[in-house]
Amino acid sequence: MSESKIDTRLWSSKARNLSPYVPGEQPQHDNLCKLNTNENPFPPSPKVGEAIAKVLTQQAEELRLYPAPESNDLRAALAQSYELDINQVFVGNGSDEVLALIFASFFLKERPLLSPDISYSFYPVYAQTFGVHLVKIPLEEDFSIDPDAYRQPCSGIIIANPNAPTGLLLSLADIRKLASEHSNAVIVIDEAYIDFSQRASETQVSAVSLINECDNIIVTQTFSKSRSLAGLRVGMAFANASLIEALTRMKNSFNSYPLDKLAQAGATASVLDVDYFEQTRQQVIDLRTSLTEALIALGYDVLPSHANFVFVRPKDGDASGVASALREQGIIVRHFDKPRINEYLRITVGTAEQNSHLIEALTVLHADNSVTSD
Amino acid sequence: MSESKIDTRLWSSKARNLSPYVPGEQPQHDNLCKLNTNENPFPPSPKVGEAIAKVLTQQAEELRLYPAPESNDLRAALAQSYELDINQVFVGNGSDEVLALIFASFFLKERPLLSPDISYSFYPVYAQTFGVHLVKIPLEEDFSIDPDAYRQPCSGIIIANPNAPTGLLLSLADIRKLASEHSNAVIVIDEAYIDFSQRASETQVSAVSLINECDNIIVTQTFSKSRSLAGLRVGMAFANASLIEALTRMKNSFNSYPLDKLAQAGATASVLDVDYFEQTRQQVIDLRTSLTEALIALGYDVLPSHANFVFVRPKDGDASGVASALREQGIIVRHFDKPRINEYLRITVGTAEQNSHLIEALTVLHADNSVTSD
Repeated sequence: MSESKIDTRLWSSKARNLSPYVPGEQPQHDNLCKLNTNENPFPPSPKVGEAIAKVLTQQAEELRLYPAPESNDLRAALAQSYELDINQVFVGNGSDEVLALIFASFFLKERPLLSPDISYSFYPVYAQTFGVHLVKIPLEEDFSIDPDAYRQPCSGIIIANPNAPTGLLLSLADIRKLASEHSNAVIVIDEAYIDFSQRASETQVSAVSLINECDNIIVTQTFSKSRSLAGLRVGMAFANASLIEALTRMKNSFNSYPLDKLAQAGATASVLDVDYFEQTRQQVIDLRTSLTEALIALGYDVLPSHANFVFVRPKDGDASGVASALREQGIIVRHFDKPRINEYLRITVGTAEQNSHLIEALTVLHADNSVTSD
Repeated sequence: MSESKIDTRLWSSKARNLSPYVPGEQPQHDNLCKLNTNENPFPPSPKVGEAIAKVLTQQAEELRLYPAPESNDLRAALAQSYELDINQVFVGNGSDEVLALIFASFFLKERPLLSPDISYSFYPVYAQTFGVHLVKIPLEEDFSIDPDAYRQPCSGIIIANPNAPTGLLLSLADIRKLASEHSNAVIVIDEAYIDFSQRASETQVSAVSLINECDNIIVTQTFSKSRSLAGLRVGMAFANASLIEALTRMKNSFNSYPLDKLAQAGATASVLDVDYFEQTRQQVIDLRTSLTEALIALGYDVLPSHANFVFVRPKDGDASGVASALREQGIIVRHFDKPRINEYLRITVGTAEQNSHLIEALTVLHADNSVTSD
């Protein structure tokens, strides 16, 4: 709706002052090489479709009934998979909803919430939505996070790990340090991309392993990335039972049944298909490695990514120009027109074909450019 | 979680003070005659399952992609069905989510929100969640709503119509009067049950017909009742485009993709199957008529219902006793232990078999009671 036609007379001042989150473009047509919203290049486990089809054929009639309000089967499957108790697990309508409920439950306090200046751009939006005072802590020059920079009174700290859009990973030692130095604050580790960490199969990288040790850590994860289910809208949080209880109450003060019957069935099947999960996440990691090498060969600076995207800087820093040129060829990548990162592009790791297509396009583009600038 | 074990140290005071909504019991096992949460006794249109199955078979791979953020196909289908423009239509994760966003968008003001003292019990919960000042206006002695009782400065008025749990209907003339007398307030008409109104097929009863005339009316509806899709979590709001724009911004400041791909496809198919919708809602109305007659024959006071439930008072007013006795026989109905309505039961209209089962149980119960009390 064009701004001039909007009549805000009946809106609350909160509604008037919102600056909503702008998700990456979701063109609803084909023929595009879509590397802009970090979706998984692989389809979800076939077990997901089977489980949903089973509900449709054997229990279609049951769609008339409300779903399980606390998604107990799904939470039980997650608890078993992550070796937690079911009351340490919360699920919601995508990790975005889970994060919103976290903001509403823990950060509406005198002390501010701390977050890196460059991170998931929904955090400042939530802060505005819920009236939370957010203080941004600058990343280091190399985009890494220095835990010592967070030494100030706060209601909480929220960090995407791996961070978005940089893809850099904070160590478990640093997370433990943050949690113990801020024992009166809630430390949210947003692990949307953690399953793609290079070291995921070798060493423990997820802060889920700290839940029983640190009662003030909440870890959020999502089915949208490593489980290829962005279309199903399921996210989760892991924490000690008292923090999960707060989220549950907040949920039941907002929307009692956020997960529909089919999403619950599909997500549960996804959790149970461990082999498929391990196999596809390793494939994405391998594809990232080859994409990284190809980009470096083209002269790009590529940050060491632990996610299913790479954060890269073209030699001349004209990220915006590269994004536009790719767009003309039907390849969409994400450019953030923001201080410090406007010379970078965030490129989702695609299929082998998509990555080749991208590299070919960039090869031609930079060959042309170098001819022009000679 | 038992209250004694909950550590609320890290909670915000808002989280500590919540009194979450308590939905009707959702036992996840069979052999129960479940007449407590106003689900439709009929399954959803077969077209719903077909549409979802089609996504699963033809586009399973697409579950890896985010869904259409604004649910444009679904909103277009609703717009066409209700003869509105697409920008007059909003959809969300059940009408509960839609209502929550309405509270957040319009009522956080100095002036209070007005609502009947007896109505959907989620309204006071939303008010608490969003810090909205809610003033309850008593229903008349006969549980009807007198528009003149709302003559006071307010940010808005929210009325369930038909009201829950009474089932009584407010006329369009009264709604128009409320809207024109409160031109600076947002009038929310929560029409979760409107499609079951006795007069739905004869006269216009839905306030959707007032949207173009009154720029301050928002009508909410749901797929959970008349469309037999409580398990799919889809609700909607109809209003002028400026009010819908506020809801859209609030949504995008909270959760960008509340409706998954399958729910969008299923709900769209439901809207398009007009015949099935008309047929099943008429069947529910007919079942309500015979259930009402049978209850009256048993000596019950039955309020004239426009919903898929009846609100009834046993002769001796011992609603709680009747609910317990039915429960022992595997029949669940809803009793609200609240002032003014604690002598009433809300009974969902079931299938012909379920209704007979209920009437038989009540017949035996009241025969026993009359023997005992003689």
